[in-house]
Amino acid sequence: KFGFNIRSGEALKAVGSVLQKDSLVFAGVHCHLGSQLLDAAPFIQAAPVMADLAAALKERLGAEPEMLDIGGGLGVRYTEKDSPLSIEDFSRLVTGCIKEAFEKRGLSLPHLLLEPGRSIVAEAGTTLYTAGQPKEVSLAGEPYRRIYLPVDGGLSDNPRPALYDAEYSVMIASRADKPRDTLYTVSGRHCETDRLFPDVMLQKADWGDIMAVQTTGAYCHSMASNYNRFPRPAVVFVSGGKPRLVYRRETPEDLVKCDLF
Amino acid sequence: KFGFNIRSGEALKAVGSVLQKDSLVFAGVHCHLGSQLLDAAPFIQAAPVMADLAAALKERLGAEPEMLDIGGGLGVRYTEKDSPLSIEDFSRLVTGCIKEAFEKRGLSLPHLLLEPGRSIVAEAGTTLYTAGQPKEVSLAGEPYRRIYLPVDGGLSDNPRPALYDAEYSVMIASRADKPRDTLYTVSGRHCETDRLFPDVMLQKADWGDIMAVQTTGAYCHSMASNYNRFPRPAVVFVSGGKPRLVYRRETPEDLVKCDLF
Repeated sequence: KFGFNIRSGEALKAVGSVLQKDSLVFAGVHCHLGSQLLDAAPFIQAAPVMADLAAALKERLGAEPEMLDIGGGLGVRYTEKDSPLSIEDFSRLVTGCIKEAFEKRGLSLPHLLLEPGRSIVAEAGTTLYTAGQPKEVSLAGEPYRRIYLPVDGGLSDNPRPALYDAEYSVMIASRADKPRDTLYTVSGRHCETDRLFPDVMLQKADWGDIMAVQTTGAYCHSMASNYNRFPRPAVVFVSGGKPRLVYRRETPEDLVKCDLF
Repeated sequence: KFGFNIRSGEALKAVGSVLQKDSLVFAGVHCHLGSQLLDAAPFIQAAPVMADLAAALKERLGAEPEMLDIGGGLGVRYTEKDSPLSIEDFSRLVTGCIKEAFEKRGLSLPHLLLEPGRSIVAEAGTTLYTAGQPKEVSLAGEPYRRIYLPVDGGLSDNPRPALYDAEYSVMIASRADKPRDTLYTVSGRHCETDRLFPDVMLQKADWGDIMAVQTTGAYCHSMASNYNRFPRPAVVFVSGGKPRLVYRRETPEDLVKCDLF
């Protein structure tokens, strides 16, 4: 839904329209390649495409972009399956291929912007849940007994598993020194199909244990809802072992503040 | 995640535990069959199962349920594909099959509860969006030009299309008398893949037109978030042509009310 197609000529036409308006300034071009990108390949592919566009803009419209925003989005480590590039390697590869592509076409180097997105905050965040009573159930078609571990949150504070089966690294923080010997289905507390983590090996847990979900600093608090009239939880920053409350827990009063009954 | 399995004996065991505690009263049994059920078949199937459970509870534990909650959830008409049973037909069919199942087993009729859920409010709700500038794009692999119609809302006020491809009846309300001659992809305004309605024939629309989405009275306002820091919209009741504001539009101040910076 965003942007203009380059190959069809729509991007060129859009810049042409900008140039014809006194009220608009043509600053440069932007592309967006995706989210949670774990290597530089999409950027390396995009560099000559954007340099070609810049060359066409210069030649056809006399409008050389002063700015190139190469977009996002740098990936983060949700589970051990994810091996994101370091910021250093990423910067070196991206600046290198853009420099090469622009110099090869005799273009001046644009002011380069990029959008690190979730990589700024995702790994800094950990969500803490309190476990409810584990429950063993026999389900039709399953030869084993499934153990549900309910927690005091779910899709209202993290809709990503429900939206697109997002995976996370999970542990029973209050038993972190124990072996991961129990297979759980961690369920949220909402009346939708709120299954946070379908099959996860965890330390044996009991009512009141604290479960930690890592890499929840992005797209969790920002996408949180009040579904089932649950208040959104507090956000606490911790630095050097010292906590600081930065988002206070919502109260019942907050939940009805806009209701005019 | 909810409930106890009947066939495995877990439900019987659970009632047994309740009966052994002085602090608990055994009132009855509950089942939940699903959501958006458009016919009575699941209830007709559930009636003998729940009556068998009641008979087993009476015989084995001397605990005849005084209450039966047959659960939810009555379906509603999202699009012309949905033909929900009327409340009258539904009630007649459900009470009939429960009466038959309990009488056949010589059980006294329980006090019957059911959970009409979304059917109470869904069809009473209509979401109004304002259209942005329609945009034609050529997409790789698509032989035609796709027209995006952006609106000033999306997954923050209705996450159901993103969660499970929910469909709705949509119209350009400000051109309701015109023919539906244009194929649009209606997109929300959020930076996630916020595609509300992938392919929908609508009245030709322009910037500022009002788009109406029907049957949004359930699971929309209640699941709304502040994603991308967008304030949740107002809710207005209309009766006899007279509007009454019941949820005031959120303000920027509301959005930061819990921030302690």
